[in-house]
Amino acid sequence: MMKAHGYAAYNPHTPLAPFSFDRRQPGSDDVLIKILYCGVCHSDIHQARDEWQGSTFPIVPGHEIIGKVLEVGSSVSRFKVGASVGVGCMVDSCGTCHDCQDHQEQFCNHTVFTYNSPDKITGTMTYGGYSDVIVVNQRFVLQIAEHLDLAAVAPLLCAGITTYSPLRHWQVGKGQKVGVVGLGGLGHMAVKFAHAFGAKVVLFTTSPSKIADAKRLGADEVVISKNSEELQKHQQSFDFILDTVAAQHNLDQYLALLKRDGTLCLVGVPDQPHPSPSVGNLIFKRRALAGSLIGGIRETQEMLDFCAEHNIVSDIELIDMADINHAFERMLKSDVKYRFVIDIQTLNQHSISGGQPASIPSAAELKAANAVG
Amino acid sequence: MMKAHGYAAYNPHTPLAPFSFDRRQPGSDDVLIKILYCGVCHSDIHQARDEWQGSTFPIVPGHEIIGKVLEVGSSVSRFKVGASVGVGCMVDSCGTCHDCQDHQEQFCNHTVFTYNSPDKITGTMTYGGYSDVIVVNQRFVLQIAEHLDLAAVAPLLCAGITTYSPLRHWQVGKGQKVGVVGLGGLGHMAVKFAHAFGAKVVLFTTSPSKIADAKRLGADEVVISKNSEELQKHQQSFDFILDTVAAQHNLDQYLALLKRDGTLCLVGVPDQPHPSPSVGNLIFKRRALAGSLIGGIRETQEMLDFCAEHNIVSDIELIDMADINHAFERMLKSDVKYRFVIDIQTLNQHSISGGQPASIPSAAELKAANAVG
Repeated sequence: MMKAHGYAAYNPHTPLAPFSFDRRQPGSDDVLIKILYCGVCHSDIHQARDEWQGSTFPIVPGHEIIGKVLEVGSSVSRFKVGASVGVGCMVDSCGTCHDCQDHQEQFCNHTVFTYNSPDKITGTMTYGGYSDVIVVNQRFVLQIAEHLDLAAVAPLLCAGITTYSPLRHWQVGKGQKVGVVGLGGLGHMAVKFAHAFGAKVVLFTTSPSKIADAKRLGADEVVISKNSEELQKHQQSFDFILDTVAAQHNLDQYLALLKRDGTLCLVGVPDQPHPSPSVGNLIFKRRALAGSLIGGIRETQEMLDFCAEHNIVSDIELIDMADINHAFERMLKSDVKYRFVIDIQTLNQHSISGGQPASIPSAAELKAANAVG
Repeated sequence: MMKAHGYAAYNPHTPLAPFSFDRRQPGSDDVLIKILYCGVCHSDIHQARDEWQGSTFPIVPGHEIIGKVLEVGSSVSRFKVGASVGVGCMVDSCGTCHDCQDHQEQFCNHTVFTYNSPDKITGTMTYGGYSDVIVVNQRFVLQIAEHLDLAAVAPLLCAGITTYSPLRHWQVGKGQKVGVVGLGGLGHMAVKFAHAFGAKVVLFTTSPSKIADAKRLGADEVVISKNSEELQKHQQSFDFILDTVAAQHNLDQYLALLKRDGTLCLVGVPDQPHPSPSVGNLIFKRRALAGSLIGGIRETQEMLDFCAEHNIVSDIELIDMADINHAFERMLKSDVKYRFVIDIQTLNQHSISGGQPASIPSAAELKAANAVG
């Protein structure tokens, strides 16, 4: 085992704080990665606060990881020491099921997620990218082009692939009119991709303040979704709508905008269920309400290569590790353009070497404390 | 104008009763049809009782019509006097929109439905097949093979195409596992078609009494949908499920049975909304919840030809016109195997010539009465 340092939620109610824990020694198929940057996804908050009711504490969040290869196992040939690499939402899967064979590891029933997921090798829970190093099987490590701003590449590993994958799956492209609901971390990537694929892009937002920015990012038109007259003008005109809003909302107003055979695809899981969609809205134009989950590893690499070729990155605000709790608060107010990314080098500067290392409990210490309690 | 005789709902609360009304004189593109049989669809009850809140009374229901050509207009060459023909749910559409051009007239925004729909030619509401004659534009008249039992062909015009169309659209066939929810008028046709297309067919029903019949109709397996253990065995195994149940019910138990990229397709409109489906069930296997509406005229003819070739008809109970109200009551108890079809010849025997013609108000008389009241 090797020591790693990061920030963890120790329970659902207190701020994230420094945490030391063990990573497994790299095996023959593993890549040891020094983490440089980690994006902050809304699901980090959900899980740190146990809002999805499945969190095992302490949790080290983070699944938008960019780093440099420190060491590779004996069976690893695709990655060289010093290369830039990425790790997204998954670090393992069964490898043998129908979904894995089809390069759709995200749908495997035994996917190991990057954090808060039982690690098949160590038997402990996985710890994510709010930390200085990570050990990942080479099958789940992505190649990153060196010419892009690496900090701004980090959010591609979740926000990027989560929007790229459905736009590709439903074959969004030239001659199509595509809607994107919500201009946050996911939405701003969806606008960039749909625009890059050649579609006419309409952004739906509740905030008039986002109009100019949406157009800068690639939207051809912005509709204020509270304005029913504006929505009315777009009835039955969309081929596809990607809904990135994770809060409970009315789906019918978007279903009604789809043409025959159009699909409204959800990528956000709300805490409370959406109002039940009208069956008539589905039947009368043979519309579909669907969902999509991140993307497979092969497609994630394809997305990263596409971004490298088209100079697409996320719009980010780079923060220090110690500012993560403040960042969470700002995200809950949608006050971020459009993704926070943690500069992981600030972890050692401020919180580990410069902080009070004596006060940081290790996983083993916590376990012992819990056993006593 | 020409006189027609039928049965109408005069209001949402009283039984259907004899009714005389006018049909337009056939124009150059029209076919005058002597109606022989008319199937009884659940939507006839919904509209006769104004359960969908859009009924204009009196209503003459009926959109599963089989008859013989009595007369054709000067521009009609496809139909000869004496030929067997069918009329389904639609009698006209705009003919020029994207949907009409794609032979998907059911999705046209100006479809004229066979009853309770504004007739563009006469300006009055259309009257359906619970009547002795009908005048229909040749574009909406179907050719019927003479070798099948014509009474049992009638339900193909709605129950048949409503299930055939989605099974074709989602490309159900050999090597696939397909579910059908509900064994009623629609469900029993869905089982026949899915079986004929070569799929493995699983019928979901709440009634153990339907197991033997479902297997006779073509189901490979029957699952009692109240039994969660039985459902559990089929998790993530279906390519496609056609849900024919129009009453409010839990969709998640069927969504969870779909494989990755599977679709649950609804063809029934419930009076009350279904419980909101779980977004997780959509996202975690990229599943879709969709709807489908009857089928286009070209596809309806294709379905009729397929049925003629494969000797597929509906399982019916033939009734007299005067028994329609009793039939409605039995349908509400799901007490029909599996579709009532009215023998329209009984209309003249019992209710018009043999009845009290003086007591039957005409549409004009009713209009006058309503104007006074």
